[in-house]
Order: sequence, then structure tokens, then C-alpha cells
Amino acid sequence: MKDGAAPFATTLSSWMSGHGPSSDVVISTRIRLARNLRGFLFPPVADRETEEAVVASVGEAMSSTGPAAMDYSLYPLREIEQIDQWVLVEKHLVSPHLVEKDGCTGIILDEDEVISVMINEEDHLRIQCLLPGLELTSALERADRMDDLLASKLPYALHKRYGYLTACPSNLGTGMRGSVMVHLPGLVLTGQMESLMSGLNKVGAVVRGVYGEGSDAQGNLFQISNRASLGSSESEIVDNLYALARELIGRERSAREALLSGDRYEIEDRVYRSYGLLTHARKMDSSEAIGLLSMVRLGSDLNILSTRVGDAFPELMVRMRRASLQRVLGERLDAGDRDVERASFIRKRLQAH
Amino acid sequence: MKDGAAPFATTLSSWMSGHGPSSDVVISTRIRLARNLRGFLFPPVADRETEEAVVASVGEAMSSTGPAAMDYSLYPLREIEQIDQWVLVEKHLVSPHLVEKDGCTGIILDEDEVISVMINEEDHLRIQCLLPGLELTSALERADRMDDLLASKLPYALHKRYGYLTACPSNLGTGMRGSVMVHLPGLVLTGQMESLMSGLNKVGAVVRGVYGEGSDAQGNLFQISNRASLGSSESEIVDNLYALARELIGRERSAREALLSGDRYEIEDRVYRSYGLLTHARKMDSSEAIGLLSMVRLGSDLNILSTRVGDAFPELMVRMRRASLQRVLGERLDAGDRDVERASFIRKRLQAH
Repeated sequence: MKDGAAPFATTLSSWMSGHGPSSDVVISTRIRLARNLRGFLFPPVADRETEEAVVASVGEAMSSTGPAAMDYSLYPLREIEQIDQWVLVEKHLVSPHLVEKDGCTGIILDEDEVISVMINEEDHLRIQCLLPGLELTSALERADRMDDLLASKLPYALHKRYGYLTACPSNLGTGMRGSVMVHLPGLVLTGQMESLMSGLNKVGAVVRGVYGEGSDAQGNLFQISNRASLGSSESEIVDNLYALARELIGRERSAREALLSGDRYEIEDRVYRSYGLLTHARKMDSSEAIGLLSMVRLGSDLNILSTRVGDAFPELMVRMRRASLQRVLGERLDAGDRDVERASFIRKRLQAH
Repeated sequence: MKDGAAPFATTLSSWMSGHGPSSDVVISTRIRLARNLRGFLFPPVADRETEEAVVASVGEAMSSTGPAAMDYSLYPLREIEQIDQWVLVEKHLVSPHLVEKDGCTGIILDEDEVISVMINEEDHLRIQCLLPGLELTSALERADRMDDLLASKLPYALHKRYGYLTACPSNLGTGMRGSVMVHLPGLVLTGQMESLMSGLNKVGAVVRGVYGEGSDAQGNLFQISNRASLGSSESEIVDNLYALARELIGRERSAREALLSGDRYEIEDRVYRSYGLLTHARKMDSSEAIGLLSMVRLGSDLNILSTRVGDAFPELMVRMRRASLQRVLGERLDAGDRDVERASFIRKRLQAH
């Protein structure tokens, strides 16, 4: 820990390890459950007093659960330095909305950062489970366990017919949403992404770039989630998303094979040039870096480069970002310095392999 | 020698060694003397019979000079494979005009490829001396020695008042032209090249890109020569060009210091990115390569990279070109293969350092 940094400021979240089922395509899986407490206004309309009462109730619930809660820490967001709040965003543990929101908010984290619970984001509780690779079932189990823990102490707002009540009606029912972060350089490079996105849309999936919009998303990283599904059970949603993910994995792998069996020098050239730039540049902005890292990851998946180089992808995609970079280096940096330090950090990290 | 390649197909010309006075800026010096034989029509208007008679006379002259001519070989151009004729162009030993011309032409070369004599180019004889670095005086001395050797056996066309008679009146007088090939990345990167070119023009110098025209010349390489100078002596022309070259060297060195004392990361980044691409790319066209090699040479001159890496510049700028590359590799290659083999050749050559 450096100059008052939060405990999570420089740790690796479990999903950043880079290893999991089908992790050549699926970087991470997320399950989130939206829950609200009976008798309190929903966060979008709550006053400060209500917000504080919610955080206090959650805090009491956690401390009264005994040994089961030992692995978890609750942080009121205002007690976390601004920069560390952004580290949480960069690690995908909280939404930008939670950090930007003016109000009394909080987060519960477990030690390996698999479970994170946002307090007073759009709902009183957003329980999230984030695992590396394609792990929808395990992620749902772990999210459910956290849900049970909280439910045993907190009065959830639950309706006989509508299920869990939520601030936005689109989340009614299970209050659950599943998503996978997928790396699709093959589909992007072979020009299939645009039509694929509209196809996915038609079968009820929501696709967005993790960094940037549409099929031009930086780093060829996309978040695929199921659309609102009042009336579906948790397992139906999970099964549906599994099927979608497997379809995508198949197509992405075929696209990569097509790249290799097409102009092999073309793809090798792109991969090696990216690696050459990442291991030599003296300054680099994050938008260029994510694109080059994506190519290196692809090269690693295709056995053009050593696999260990590609394993650094999830870690580097987080740590090279603005807040995390400063926490990793333990210094405050202006924009120009950040580009220099980012280049140096990536260079050393890749050359260590 | 590979599959019938000419002896000079894979050798290094002396100027390609990369070492000479002020060779951080001046890659090479060239002196050329235009000479014609009395009693023969000038090449632009000569018929085939005359051309053949000229080549025959020169051949007889060379073989009758005894030991002094031992170091020289005369090649009728039609006896040289097309690809090797282009190797001569790429090594700057003959003009493209000589190779493209339909007629009876020839070349005399010495062993270290310092002296080359084009036969039946625009004049019956074009004696050239090419040395690494800024070496006008030595180059003139060596060209003069070759001139004396030929003059002792051949009847030169000489006029009391106009001096050496030449096909183009602009060469009358000494028939001499001097030029230096200069590497000016500092002046180009600091945006001074355009105004400098017009300034040089005003003081009687001719500036052209070695690869491509104007201030956008590829590889930041320029050829500076004196303009036509009937009435000037050889030593006046040499002194004039020396002064020009020294002025340019001074300005280029100041520009490089300005780059280093400005945004140092900016210049280091450019240099290292170029090096990273050259040592990693799997295919590369010659236009990209010359630009990147120029940055690596600059980085070497500025001690950002090892000096030995920069020393390879003159050699690589020749050997990566179409004909030389095929001779060095000993294979005929189509355009796509050339880009792949060029990348591989440069990569290995730079990594050997």
C-alpha cells in the first residue's frame, strides 16, 4: 500500500489472472443481482438521510452475520480517495455511475475481488460476481451465496407477482443480469462484427464495446448481456447466455483459423508489429495501447507469440489505465507523464516474459 | 556468387561501409568527370556502330595501360543480367538512364567500387568516384587519377576556350560535378527543410531527394550538388561544395541538439518505435523501411541506440532494395515475397548488433 492507497488499489482481481474456461475468447463472466430494501425509497429518488440509513443497515447486517462475513469489507465510498474509486471502476468492480454520483454510497468487496456489492447505485444493492473465463453457473452460485447472506439479515422488497422490485422496471423479476466480456479480434479483422452485432441483437442479446461504442470498440473487447427478461428464471437466463457465448466462441475461433490459413504473413506482421511497438515505444496513450495489446493477445492465442505474453492482457488492460497506473507506480502523474510511464510499464511487463 | 550473378552483385561498395569524415550527416561524396572522345558523335545522337567503336576503344585503352589497369574490370552492359544492372543502380554506381537506355553501353569498376566509369551514357565517359563521408578532395584526386589513366590512351575532345566538350553544354569546362548525399532528419523533423532548400538554391546548389522529390524525400536523404559552372576551376567547385556541406552539417547538428533538448521522450519514442517495427515486422515495403531506417540511424547518431545499429544504414538502404535483395538472398521473388524477405533481412541484420 502506497501513500494511503486503499487495500484494493494495487491487487489483482481474480478475473484479471487471465485463466478460466474458454478464456481464449471469454475474458470474464459477470452475474449481478439487483436488490432493494423494503421501506426505503429507491436510490434515484432517495434523500441523503435514506441513503445513509441504507448504508447503515447493510453495515449492521454484515457485522451481524458472524464468520460468514469475515472475508468481506464494506467501504463507504466517501472514505475512499477519488483515485481509488476510479481504480474500482477500472477493475470493473463498480460502475462509473456509482463514483460520479453525488450521495452516500458504498461497496462491499471480498478478498479475491470476485464478489462486489454496490450500495445505493441505481438499486440499494447490486450484488456482482466476476470470474475469469466463461463461468456463468459458478458465478451465479457465488452471487446467490452472497445474496442469501444479505437476505438473511435484510428485508428485501419482493412482490408476489413481479419478483424483486427494482428502481428500473426492466430489472423486475429475478433482478438478475448476466454478461460476458469477450475478445473478438478474429471477427473484427475478418469484417464480421457488424452483421454479427445485429444478429445478436435480434436474438435478445445486448452488445456493447468495453472501450468505445459499436463495432469499432477499442481492443476488440465486447460485453454481451441478456436483455430484460421478466418471467424468465435465473437458470433460463444463464442457459440462454451460455448458448450465445458458445456460439460466439465457435465463430471467433473459426475466424481466427481463417486468419491463419489466409495470408499468414499478414496476421503475423500485425501481431509482431504490435509486440514491437509495445516493447519499444517510449510513450503511449491508453487507446493505442489497448489496440496493440489486443493484437498481442491474439498472437499469443494463435501461438505466434508465447502464451505467457498473452496472459498479461487482462492485467495490463486494467493497470495501464489512468488511476490504476498511478497506484501501481505510487505517483501522481499528469497526462504527458502518464503516457511515458504507461509505455515503460507495459514494456517492462511484456519483456519480463 | 549465386546463379550467374555478377561479381559486384553482393559486394559492399566502399561508400556503404558507413565510415568517413562527418558521416553522421554526409553519407557519401561523389565526384564525376564528363569526358568525350574526339571524332565520335556524342551518345545522344550516335548510331550503334559509333557506340560500339567507343566501347571498343575504351576496352583497348584499358588493356594497354598495363599494371595500372589491373584493379579495373570493364563490363559491356548487355553481358550483365538485367537484375545485376539494377544492382549497380541501387549501389549508386550507374544512373538509371544507363540501364534503361537501348544501346551499346558499358561500365568500368574497380575492386572496392570507389571508381565507376559509365561508357556511352550521356557522354562517352562519365568517370565517377564515390567515397563514404565528406571526402571531396580525395574523391577528386582519385577521379583525376582514373582520368589521367584514360587520357593517356584516349583522344579526349577538348576545346581551348570551352574546356572539355560535353553532350550537354551545362557540363562544358571542367566537365566536373561534385555532390554529397546527406542525411537530414533533424532539419526535416524541425520543419526547416523547405526554407533551407530554397536558400541553397539561391546560392547555386541543386538539392533533390535521393528517394522521391522535394522536402518529402523518403529517408530524409538528399543529394546536394553544385550547379553548372563554366569558368570555374575544379578546386573552386570543390571549395564551394565544401563550404555548402559544412554549413549544412552545422545546421543539421544544431537541429538534432534542438530535438534532444526539446521533448526528449518525443524523439526517443520515434526512434524506438522505428527500431521496434524494423526488428519485428514480418513484411515491409521499401518506402516504409527507408523512413524507419532513417530514424534508427538518427537514434544511433544521438546515442539513443547503439552506434553499430546506425552503421548498417548505408548498407541496408541498398540491400533492401528490389534487385540487391534478390541477389543477397539468391532468389527471384515476386512483390509480396520481397516485402516478407525484406522484413526478414532487415530484422536479422539489425538484431545481429
